[in-house]
Amino acid sequence: MRCEVVAVGTELLLGQIVDTNSSWIGGQLALAGIDCHRHTAVGDNRERMLVAFREALERSDAVIVTGGLGPTQDDITREVVAEVMGVGLERDPGIVAEIERRFSGRGRQMPANNLRQADVPVGATAIPEMPGTAPGLVCPIGDPVGGRVLYAVPGVPWEMQAMLEGTVLPDLRRRADSEAVIRSRVLRTWGRSESGLAEVLADEIDRLDAEGGPTLAFLASGMEGLKVRITAKGADEDEVAAVLADEEERVREIVGPIVFGVDDQNMESVVLDELVAQGLTLATAESLTGGMIGTRLTDVPGASRAFRGAIVAYDGDVKRGLLGVPEGPVVSEAAVVAMAEGACRVLCADVSVAVTGVAGPDPQDGEKPGTVWMATSVDGVVEAAKVEFPFDRSLTRQFTVITVLDALRRRLLSRRGA
Amino acid sequence: MRCEVVAVGTELLLGQIVDTNSSWIGGQLALAGIDCHRHTAVGDNRERMLVAFREALERSDAVIVTGGLGPTQDDITREVVAEVMGVGLERDPGIVAEIERRFSGRGRQMPANNLRQADVPVGATAIPEMPGTAPGLVCPIGDPVGGRVLYAVPGVPWEMQAMLEGTVLPDLRRRADSEAVIRSRVLRTWGRSESGLAEVLADEIDRLDAEGGPTLAFLASGMEGLKVRITAKGADEDEVAAVLADEEERVREIVGPIVFGVDDQNMESVVLDELVAQGLTLATAESLTGGMIGTRLTDVPGASRAFRGAIVAYDGDVKRGLLGVPEGPVVSEAAVVAMAEGACRVLCADVSVAVTGVAGPDPQDGEKPGTVWMATSVDGVVEAAKVEFPFDRSLTRQFTVITVLDALRRRLLSRRGA
Repeated sequence: MRCEVVAVGTELLLGQIVDTNSSWIGGQLALAGIDCHRHTAVGDNRERMLVAFREALERSDAVIVTGGLGPTQDDITREVVAEVMGVGLERDPGIVAEIERRFSGRGRQMPANNLRQADVPVGATAIPEMPGTAPGLVCPIGDPVGGRVLYAVPGVPWEMQAMLEGTVLPDLRRRADSEAVIRSRVLRTWGRSESGLAEVLADEIDRLDAEGGPTLAFLASGMEGLKVRITAKGADEDEVAAVLADEEERVREIVGPIVFGVDDQNMESVVLDELVAQGLTLATAESLTGGMIGTRLTDVPGASRAFRGAIVAYDGDVKRGLLGVPEGPVVSEAAVVAMAEGACRVLCADVSVAVTGVAGPDPQDGEKPGTVWMATSVDGVVEAAKVEFPFDRSLTRQFTVITVLDALRRRLLSRRGA
Repeated sequence: MRCEVVAVGTELLLGQIVDTNSSWIGGQLALAGIDCHRHTAVGDNRERMLVAFREALERSDAVIVTGGLGPTQDDITREVVAEVMGVGLERDPGIVAEIERRFSGRGRQMPANNLRQADVPVGATAIPEMPGTAPGLVCPIGDPVGGRVLYAVPGVPWEMQAMLEGTVLPDLRRRADSEAVIRSRVLRTWGRSESGLAEVLADEIDRLDAEGGPTLAFLASGMEGLKVRITAKGADEDEVAAVLADEEERVREIVGPIVFGVDDQNMESVVLDELVAQGLTLATAESLTGGMIGTRLTDVPGASRAFRGAIVAYDGDVKRGLLGVPEGPVVSEAAVVAMAEGACRVLCADVSVAVTGVAGPDPQDGEKPGTVWMATSVDGVVEAAKVEFPFDRSLTRQFTVITVLDALRRRLLSRRGA
């Protein structure tokens, strides 16, 4: 079973929006064991959409088209899909009623152009999930028994996702029924370069290649760390799970304690889980990150079990007045130690992390951009270190977040003797 | 002049990384007035890469390939490009020396597999910019005079960007020399839905269609607001600039004061500029956003001219102890007003924004997810409002950030009588 993804929208080609939909759909297809060999993005242009849809259908059993189902004049996916199917459009009174109901439910009047969204190619069926006002479509192509299929879903991510989860993926799984199970596990690491990891794992990769086992791949992901993905194929879930577990153990033995998490775990969730397990509360004192450590921690639902809050001391006076930083340079060991102690004291927390540095682009207090002091406080003992990142403002901030949280993670692990 | 973008990497298809490179390159091509009709992503697979490169070259004058230039075994872009060119690879001693120099400069030993990165297809030239250890390539295809060209650049964003800016885009501009100038201007708005904006602008779009003027397009962008893009084409920069200025004025007249910025301006930069212009300092008190308002503000270089800091009071005790929130529910008008006042007092700031609410997924204090109280304090006067967002945790946090900053923006504008 092969499925391609075609994203529609001139704004994608012009770089005014990043295509996160194809990526998300790719992940879901991989989980479902469905091969996806290509993603394509085309503009809102009838002729080029036609060519892209037809080419994708020639290479695949199924095609998922995102975007171009909105109410505005440049949204022409419905028309182009009808042309690919060789049929006309008809207005669906059930969808008309549903769209009208949604607008009146929010006390708003329906703009007339929204009615275009109720036009359906003859022979296609509307997808029952409809979180917005654009209905998705299941469009059989050619022979209806065993033939190919095109799914048209909106470009709005949460509308697209609801339709994929409710209708498209179950339908694809039914069609792919007899195929093998493919699963991946991602080991998340911090503290080693991509080429260094590849070097240390080269023998294992050669062994897997020779024996036809699972595959390994590497992916540098900024604030998300460096990922090692293990992918295995097998007859059923149990077989694949056993292969993944075995390979994970081998990789962990080879790379050592730089693995901080698995799959959807990230540095924040791992640190929060460890804090909760040890009954500790956390505070942060941030300067160059401006609140990013707190933002990342509170991205995790349930962060309130351990996270008390943050002092973002961007201004030097705030560092001195609220956190007790001594007079002198604010990018220094003395400053970051005082910030870590101040965070625990002011926010009544058991442990803390603190960062102060130069995000750039300009130097500050004679320190060059990328210079960062970091500290962790655990059981009243502060440890501090200086790092010089060779990166721009954005990456310097991201790497500061994961580096200081990893330092805390390691201290928490040794605290409970792990 | 037409140029396509092909992104290489199985991790893109599997959804383990979002392809931000194609989007960024698309934006740069549009600015350079070069048409881009398609983006493609393929996996690290020789046969499928070959097909994708050849198809893109058939449709275009130039192709930019990102990814697959790394040191690991699955990086085969060099080999596939050589096959498309019909030539072999040769190791470039200058690049070998350069890669070795970079490793020794960071005091690290070079893994042997990094040397593969010095292999260059015969007839191709290395791109002089080399921020990492992967050299980019300029590869002439077919007739070297007026023929087509393939650029291979790394998938690491900052390496790719340095090569595009230093070599690829100037080379493309030279080749496209005689073509028309295409420029866009983006008006950034907040406070109206996409279909509502389309409705109010429908007559103007019809007029532009009929008269063959510039085009208008809409784009909902979460925390970045809702964008209205004006695109114009003309013989030279002056002509296009005049058309864009004229159309911007028309659109502003039609949509009114919901336009908060233009092009690269965002809500944070606009608010910071206004604060600096009025000589005011800003502090934030954040609960459900966990520091995200501070993070966004400090994404802007030079934020320190106005931003003093933030109190992230995630825990109720912190709200009461540090910010003076009274006993009682913390998702309430009384709480958010105290937070806004507390932020100004504790951080010695002239103005502040404060937010407290339920990000979800679970209800809190009997309030359902999406319920948010927001406040702004200007000249000691606090204004508060309640919003109920029908979104998930992530979008609720994003919309909270832009909504409260827009409220502050409007108060600052009326403060100086604009």
